Amino acid sequence: MSPAPADREPAFASAKCVVTGGLGFIGSNLVHALVVRGANVHVIDARIPEHGANDANLAGLDVAIHDASIDDADVAEVCAGASYIFNVAGQVSHVASMRDPQQDLRLNATSHATFLETIRAVSPHARVVHTSTRQVYGRPVRVPVDESHPTHPVDVNGVAKLAGEQLHMVYGHVYGLAVTSLRLTNVYGPRQRLTSDELGFLPVFIRRALCDEVIEIFGDGSQRRDCLHVDDVVDAILLAACDDRAIGEIYNVGSPVDQSLREIAELIVELSGSTGGLQLTSWPSDHVKIDVGSVHIDASKIEALGWRSRTDMRAGLGRTIDFYRECPWYLSST
Amino acid sequence: MSPAPADREPAFASAKCVVTGGLGFIGSNLVHALVVRGANVHVIDARIPEHGANDANLAGLDVAIHDASIDDADVAEVCAGASYIFNVAGQVSHVASMRDPQQDLRLNATSHATFLETIRAVSPHARVVHTSTRQVYGRPVRVPVDESHPTHPVDVNGVAKLAGEQLHMVYGHVYGLAVTSLRLTNVYGPRQRLTSDELGFLPVFIRRALCDEVIEIFGDGSQRRDCLHVDDVVDAILLAACDDRAIGEIYNVGSPVDQSLREIAELIVELSGSTGGLQLTSWPSDHVKIDVGSVHIDASKIEALGWRSRTDMRAGLGRTIDFYRECPWYLSST
Repeated sequence: MSPAPADREPAFASAKCVVTGGLGFIGSNLVHALVVRGANVHVIDARIPEHGANDANLAGLDVAIHDASIDDADVAEVCAGASYIFNVAGQVSHVASMRDPQQDLRLNATSHATFLETIRAVSPHARVVHTSTRQVYGRPVRVPVDESHPTHPVDVNGVAKLAGEQLHMVYGHVYGLAVTSLRLTNVYGPRQRLTSDELGFLPVFIRRALCDEVIEIFGDGSQRRDCLHVDDVVDAILLAACDDRAIGEIYNVGSPVDQSLREIAELIVELSGSTGGLQLTSWPSDHVKIDVGSVHIDASKIEALGWRSRTDMRAGLGRTIDFYRECPWYLSST
Repeated sequence: MSPAPADREPAFASAKCVVTGGLGFIGSNLVHALVVRGANVHVIDARIPEHGANDANLAGLDVAIHDASIDDADVAEVCAGASYIFNVAGQVSHVASMRDPQQDLRLNATSHATFLETIRAVSPHARVVHTSTRQVYGRPVRVPVDESHPTHPVDVNGVAKLAGEQLHMVYGHVYGLAVTSLRLTNVYGPRQRLTSDELGFLPVFIRRALCDEVIEIFGDGSQRRDCLHVDDVVDAILLAACDDRAIGEIYNVGSPVDQSLREIAELIVELSGSTGGLQLTSWPSDHVKIDVGSVHIDASKIEALGWRSRTDMRAGLGRTIDFYRECPWYLSST
């Protein structure tokens, strides 16, 4: 974890911080960063199977973990008096959202409406940062994609995440909650669930390389993605929570560098020394219709607040591979 | 009901047509139009209290009425083999959406995901027309508002309607359902529920005028609206169902003429001969934050398919007032 600038750190010292989805990938990295800064951290996590919650992600940290969905009534007590609420909980898988639309709508949209009612009731002055996704844009009609790009999601996940994000904005506008939503691109780094094929291509590529298995790339591998190390995402979340200019705003969070899936796979094979290599394969039917093609995010709006993607892809992937080599249980945990 | 052009009428003769929300305002006017055209009409309506369902709306018509929510399992039998599915069911009230977000999200979004799964299973070749709302745009950043205008809803109703609309588009894109969604503006005309203060300003203005009560206008009455007679909406729905160019598309449906709320109220007072008059009053707290200011829709996209708003406001309001004078039970029905 790269330290954030020192002038932002005092904000979190002894502050009551709630992190929903805090046992998962991005949530747990955020919890680590908050603990380093001396925060009083409460985690809310529903431990939904196959969604990334993992006790190992917070092992050894002095944080309170509450097993609950964000729409459970008893989260009110957890949120009461919180200074910061980081609402990271959600469902990530695009394919799963098409298999079970109701679950995705609940986890990404309707449960957030209930959670916002809870915040409104018990911690109306908390700073609230919600994590959204660039999936809300769907297939880009122009690149790079800035925040004014039309939102035409191509799958239920994108529809539900957009609704969740917009609910946060409505509660900000109507009730004065201090909300910010961040549209994240493909995120990689430590503490990600590697054993699912449905949480994005990066954990799949990394797992296969670490297991010396072949990395399969759908199509010709020319689709471009701007990947982001989770440390940079955590920086953006903390920055948004501390900057009043971010209240009521939506920001893209992405890297200025995009690469093709093939280039990313080749880099992972090289850095890991995988003997599995990579191969191009045809699109599975449940992926082809919901792929968004090449995406490149314009993050200049959040860069104007002082955020930068600081992690070079080669260095970030190298550290990520080292992390999983030291913690091999991520390759088999469920 | 003005007849649609004769060349479109044969499409509906003997065709199995399903109308969700068919006991309500727009749905029942659509049912009347379909019956005139010889269709075999099935209505699905959950009769949710205070949402506009009224048996009087379909009195004397030979149509099958199924008391069900669109997410009930037994609507599969109703939809099986349908040629046209008009998905008009929904929750209209902006204020109610803030009082009970979960109900609005269910009625406008999540139940539609289930309904689309049903259509996919039992009538994948049906033409599906969904009614959305200009509320999805929120407060306009430019007027007139065309379909590429950003969608930043200001209330839960707008969030949920947008999600419902996008779910239709996703099911079109991913599964090949032949979907169209129409974003309607303020609609008036016969068979509207007049006794609620939460279904838009037009039924309130009309009821008060017919009862010789004062029409209250929030603020200075300068906000502009483009109102649409329900006959024109029915025309648009039937046109969209018959034109293959509309498949997978979203259209604004609005009048080229906008007027201020004050002008509209004055016209209603004049046409009805109301002795109540009108008065300006301050904004109620539950309305002020979710008002969208002046709205004027650009409907040129659907006009390119041959649709026009054919009903002049003065003539349309005059006929509407005549209708309610002949059917005074609308002034007291619940």
